[in-house]
Amino acid sequence: MNLQAPFQSPARAADPREARRQIREGLHTGHTAGLAPGYLQGNLVILPAEHALDFFRFCQRNPKPCPLVGVSDTGNPDLFTLGTDVDIRTDVPSYNIFRDGVLTESVPDIKALWGEDSVAFVIGCSFTFEQALVTDGIRLRHWDDDTTVSMYRTSIQTTPAGPFRGEMVVSMRPMTMANAIKAAAITARFPHAHGAPVHIGDPAQIGIADIAKPDFGDPTPIEDGEVPVFWACGVTPQRTVLEAKLPLVITHTPGHMLVTDIPGYEAGGG
Amino acid sequence: MNLQAPFQSPARAADPREARRQIREGLHTGHTAGLAPGYLQGNLVILPAEHALDFFRFCQRNPKPCPLVGVSDTGNPDLFTLGTDVDIRTDVPSYNIFRDGVLTESVPDIKALWGEDSVAFVIGCSFTFEQALVTDGIRLRHWDDDTTVSMYRTSIQTTPAGPFRGEMVVSMRPMTMANAIKAAAITARFPHAHGAPVHIGDPAQIGIADIAKPDFGDPTPIEDGEVPVFWACGVTPQRTVLEAKLPLVITHTPGHMLVTDIPGYEAGGG
Repeated sequence: MNLQAPFQSPARAADPREARRQIREGLHTGHTAGLAPGYLQGNLVILPAEHALDFFRFCQRNPKPCPLVGVSDTGNPDLFTLGTDVDIRTDVPSYNIFRDGVLTESVPDIKALWGEDSVAFVIGCSFTFEQALVTDGIRLRHWDDDTTVSMYRTSIQTTPAGPFRGEMVVSMRPMTMANAIKAAAITARFPHAHGAPVHIGDPAQIGIADIAKPDFGDPTPIEDGEVPVFWACGVTPQRTVLEAKLPLVITHTPGHMLVTDIPGYEAGGG
Repeated sequence: MNLQAPFQSPARAADPREARRQIREGLHTGHTAGLAPGYLQGNLVILPAEHALDFFRFCQRNPKPCPLVGVSDTGNPDLFTLGTDVDIRTDVPSYNIFRDGVLTESVPDIKALWGEDSVAFVIGCSFTFEQALVTDGIRLRHWDDDTTVSMYRTSIQTTPAGPFRGEMVVSMRPMTMANAIKAAAITARFPHAHGAPVHIGDPAQIGIADIAKPDFGDPTPIEDGEVPVFWACGVTPQRTVLEAKLPLVITHTPGHMLVTDIPGYEAGGG
């Protein structure tokens, strides 16, 4: 996820409704990191209804990489379960359009593409738990260095549903083992933001040959006394959907999420 | 839920695969309380595919009354995500058949009714968290008295999806406030078994006029020093589906659940 696009916003809105208004009116076109802190942000996948039931199953069967936080009615762009006046056609700063699995363009709204049979899925993302880790005193190297988190393909297989299948993609954050244990306990409280780690330590055990060479994002040096900690990553459902090569799939542009009205902690509650 | 049917089983199987084998072969026809202790049991709702996407949404939007633990592929009776060799046509001791919202019969298998377009939804139930409460020393009056838990219609509205809507049904267990606080913390760890309570104390606040007159189940006396503790109840999705008056809906017969291979604690994990 490229989080390094320059800020293009009058000011980082603290209120999620104000953030969406700025996005909708074209006043905020950059990434959403730091917008409406404490509110859940989500990844977006829009599919035609004929594939929605299988994708719903895929998310239900793979909750760590695909923690569903909201699903639209068919053809209705109002995601009323995620906030007041959320129009999924306009309220994400940038959308990626994929045809037959190939990225054809990035656009600032999808008014022309949303149809009667469109279904929008919003999936929790790691912003939520990263905020909790930093609040609890665990430093994140990619925050300190302003890089994109390291992501890797693994040998962990997802549970398939219809055309959706494939390996899990994970993100990696290096830290001391003491912090890894603490981070496991903290993130377990956020099942809607990928939950507890899927692995700590030896990358080879989950099929990662070279930790210095991530498949996505930037490399992250692992310093003496640190272990790599791996979490299921929201890139998993995106890759899965693209590899199914559907005629039309719409996602958010990486880093440009939907800002919801849901407090981050609420989504993790019991 | 009528849990008072006599045991009709050669022995209470401790292993979930053995429990399902006995059920499949007609050796166990009674309720499933106490079968395969420690393994998650589930409520069952089977719908035609045309209504499956809306019911999936209803469950996603109302996770406390409708905690989904598994969903079949369309037309495939093998619920492979819930265990080894689970055949949803035969592995529940008794099924209720509803036509246009009316119970027409209870049958020991649904081989003749399962079709190419059938989709089975399995929803977590309170057995899981009740075991945890009792293990942690909280006595449950309906266990001690061998009655059915008290259930009530409330003024709490579910979030609708397509034809599925209506009020939440809750179950009630009386206990001291000290135990209620402990029970809230314990059940919060079981989001797949209705999670934390939806209310503690004054029944009128959730629209219950007379706590002595449950809408379903048996009355449960509240003794001096006790408060009523309310949890979202799996009767909610059943009532919702029946009130939609679909031509054919199949559920488990109350108390006669699907026994899965999922350890109870795992389903509650992060």
